[in-house]
Amino acid sequence: MLEQVNLEKAISKEKYKPEAKALKARLSGLQQKVKEAKLPVLVLFEGWGAAGKGSLISDVILQLDPRGFKVYSTAAAEEFERRRPFLWRYWNLIPQYGEFSVLDRSWYQEITTARVEEKIGNEENSRRIQRINTFERQLTDDGYLLIKFFLHIDKEEQKERFEKLEKASVTTWRVTRRDWYHNEHYAEYYTAFDEMLERTNTPNAPWQMISAHDKYNASLEVFRTLVTQIETALAAREQKKSMPVMTGDAIDYGNFNLVTMPKLKDISLDCTIEKEPYDETLKKLQKKLKRLHNEIYLKKIPVIIAYEGWDAAGKGGNIKRVAAALDPRGYEVCPIAAPDKYELAHHYLWRFWKHIPKTGHVEIFDRTWYGRVMVERIEGFCTQEQWRRAYREINEFERELHEWGAVIVKFWIHVSREEQLRRFNDRQNTPEKQWKITDEDWRNREKWDDYEQAVDEMIRYTSTDFAPWTIVESEDKKYARIKALEVLIDAIEKRLEQAEKEEKKSGDENSPQESQKGKKSGKKDKGKKK
Amino acid sequence: MLEQVNLEKAISKEKYKPEAKALKARLSGLQQKVKEAKLPVLVLFEGWGAAGKGSLISDVILQLDPRGFKVYSTAAAEEFERRRPFLWRYWNLIPQYGEFSVLDRSWYQEITTARVEEKIGNEENSRRIQRINTFERQLTDDGYLLIKFFLHIDKEEQKERFEKLEKASVTTWRVTRRDWYHNEHYAEYYTAFDEMLERTNTPNAPWQMISAHDKYNASLEVFRTLVTQIETALAAREQKKSMPVMTGDAIDYGNFNLVTMPKLKDISLDCTIEKEPYDETLKKLQKKLKRLHNEIYLKKIPVIIAYEGWDAAGKGGNIKRVAAALDPRGYEVCPIAAPDKYELAHHYLWRFWKHIPKTGHVEIFDRTWYGRVMVERIEGFCTQEQWRRAYREINEFERELHEWGAVIVKFWIHVSREEQLRRFNDRQNTPEKQWKITDEDWRNREKWDDYEQAVDEMIRYTSTDFAPWTIVESEDKKYARIKALEVLIDAIEKRLEQAEKEEKKSGDENSPQESQKGKKSGKKDKGKKK
Repeated sequence: MLEQVNLEKAISKEKYKPEAKALKARLSGLQQKVKEAKLPVLVLFEGWGAAGKGSLISDVILQLDPRGFKVYSTAAAEEFERRRPFLWRYWNLIPQYGEFSVLDRSWYQEITTARVEEKIGNEENSRRIQRINTFERQLTDDGYLLIKFFLHIDKEEQKERFEKLEKASVTTWRVTRRDWYHNEHYAEYYTAFDEMLERTNTPNAPWQMISAHDKYNASLEVFRTLVTQIETALAAREQKKSMPVMTGDAIDYGNFNLVTMPKLKDISLDCTIEKEPYDETLKKLQKKLKRLHNEIYLKKIPVIIAYEGWDAAGKGGNIKRVAAALDPRGYEVCPIAAPDKYELAHHYLWRFWKHIPKTGHVEIFDRTWYGRVMVERIEGFCTQEQWRRAYREINEFERELHEWGAVIVKFWIHVSREEQLRRFNDRQNTPEKQWKITDEDWRNREKWDDYEQAVDEMIRYTSTDFAPWTIVESEDKKYARIKALEVLIDAIEKRLEQAEKEEKKSGDENSPQESQKGKKSGKKDKGKKK
Repeated sequence: MLEQVNLEKAISKEKYKPEAKALKARLSGLQQKVKEAKLPVLVLFEGWGAAGKGSLISDVILQLDPRGFKVYSTAAAEEFERRRPFLWRYWNLIPQYGEFSVLDRSWYQEITTARVEEKIGNEENSRRIQRINTFERQLTDDGYLLIKFFLHIDKEEQKERFEKLEKASVTTWRVTRRDWYHNEHYAEYYTAFDEMLERTNTPNAPWQMISAHDKYNASLEVFRTLVTQIETALAAREQKKSMPVMTGDAIDYGNFNLVTMPKLKDISLDCTIEKEPYDETLKKLQKKLKRLHNEIYLKKIPVIIAYEGWDAAGKGGNIKRVAAALDPRGYEVCPIAAPDKYELAHHYLWRFWKHIPKTGHVEIFDRTWYGRVMVERIEGFCTQEQWRRAYREINEFERELHEWGAVIVKFWIHVSREEQLRRFNDRQNTPEKQWKITDEDWRNREKWDDYEQAVDEMIRYTSTDFAPWTIVESEDKKYARIKALEVLIDAIEKRLEQAEKEEKKSGDENSPQESQKGKKSGKKDKGKKK
């Protein structure tokens, strides 16, 4: 795509001034409309060093009211970011509906400079591209307008700019050795950029190639694109409003291998455990989990536990038995309530991304992102189109976590309709428990059949081979606690075995001299094995 | 204080069990009351390594509903935290009203382990203690309940625990070389702890000394203290409700040197500047500011610009002229609107702390923390007691920023009552400007006299020698822009001169061999000077 950019384009100051002024005024005026239409606009600037990203961003944001935009400069990731999936920090900075985020560099550094400098292989590179395309599709499906600029200059031009910056004493420091390295290896970066541009030039988020030798030309191209893209997006929104609502779309769960799961009505709920073996087993399992928590902390393996289930099924008590075995400095219980106004003003997955734990930590979600295909579906808080594609989005989300190395355990805490009624009545009739039962619980109970259908579909379409559901029979809460602990322990142990294999493999490959990474994390263990 | 702890205390399991159970149930029941009373509870655990902080925290939080608490484990600061004032990261984790924050270690590490390990001198140590006492006083004045536990064990006990942990294969890794260093230098840490405890054992936030040799005893002491402290705080709140509202408290601006400032009515507003010299001067000043932005970025000096002023005085346009000179990757305009529900549920300074920039960055506040002594005072959004002590709290806040190294510039953008009316009418009558004028503006205008009195008092009591106000005559907006730029440039230049002096001084002290720090930041400059 780079070769198609005509770098000869130039424009005189006289021609530039009036057109720029008009475009800037238009952009400025559009901000109010963007706000009214609740259109989220994500503008990112990529391109060669010294291509002029900084001054273009400066010029763009000066047209905007600071109440409606944020600028993010993507520097090297800090420790707390490196210990999260690589898209984590980008999810954190998506704009809320009706606002702008302007990014100086973005997730693309993970497949451009990283590709050259960290010698990322083809396979890993493709995976990253796939993740990015998925991420961008999830955003644009949700109505985000993504405007991706690539500022192009050639090797000579870059060299001249670096030299000029170096000459002026104030800006000398801005040209680093790394910049010169980039210029010397221009050809390599060119290949990496070009490949990246080709493969991420999607219909929903196409690249805007900017010819940046002439600053006036670059500026006009940027402002023209911004104005046109925003106006088009606003018009499309208007048009969509007047179109009939589509129904009957097929459920989209993506291209995933699903595990076959039973329907809720086929689950036998008569499993029980006596008090004595329960106490003993519970103690034993908690002790084991405690030890495993230690191990995953050391091996930096993250664990994500998702709890869903019927009201009064015993989620809280179940979570407590798991939490009691964990070191408080390494886990968090994240209770999910109805979204607040900031959460409602973002992609629905945004609030869950924010709670992804650091490697080595455990996050227990008390209710989860599955609200999208249960309560939001049934209560009409999202459109049919939205919940039907959510299965795929959720599977993609969990795949991202899985590929990052997380253990993912998902529990459906199950009771019968009759047992729920007994527990509701018990709560109603016991003063200390009354706060636990609300009118909403009773209303939800009336919709049992709708929920059952939704849950069956959810379990069916999101039991991927890497993140299957576990239905936990909780007619007897004690039985449910033991089962949940066992399933969790089993999942962690499997993941640890896998980690050991990987470690061994990479140890074999790297021997006799180990890689820096291997040395750091694996040293102590290896010493012991001998 | 440590010598007063009786380490012999012990209790049998049989006696422990029923009392612990009762206390835990009481704590559990108190959470709902804490929520209803909107009491924020900050519990921190300090003490010797291996004294049992982790398991006590685990036990405490298991009694609480996860919807009402957060646990924070204070590890070494990351880069983004080190580039902020040292209290910054602690301000970020204070609980909201009605919730708990439980801290595993806290700000006290800055005056205990740091005191020993970084050889913090007496003077710096005293300053840190003063800052911490100020921070805690600000919280408790605002109604926060601060419960500070110190878990004490002696050298022998610690040694035994380390040995025991090391022996068990799962926990070997938990005992680090640093732990053994601590044990070997127990006496030194003892002195540092004891000094810290003495000097921060304030009436509003006293230490709770826990005898931690016997785990049952430690547990009972912790739970007993929690229950008692919370019950007492709740009772005090109830009592306060029924007390008559105090009026007539004196204004408290703290122990600061104030700069004498004129009253608004004495400001002459006839300063103007012609179009031509304006254009020229503006360009020149912006160029200069651009260069200075470069320098403060390199020297890692943070700049905080606070804009306040009458409605329609021209704040927005003024800010824009400053922003236009800055690199977008190094500044942010932070518009301050009415607080949202999370902001209302915290100490009022919390939301401003969150926006303190990194070193080397510029933060421009469009309206500020001074809302407390203007709109909140006049509209009755806070009590008289609250705004009267806010002058001191604000001076303390700004001193914290100043001591951290920030340039602080505060502008009151001033116009006459008549000029405001002209601008309001102009906005009302110009379609493109109508969105800029609201009913609220007209209502505020009616309260001009109240505001004028409040502004006069604000300027009088918060013009400290390190952060004085500048009244910017904005009857002619062009004049105001030039003046603001000049004042800002002047302040930055003075700070840079000071930085150069300090650098030189530390260079002289350290020569011939420079300190690591000096080497890193000052190398390039020094090379040039020769």
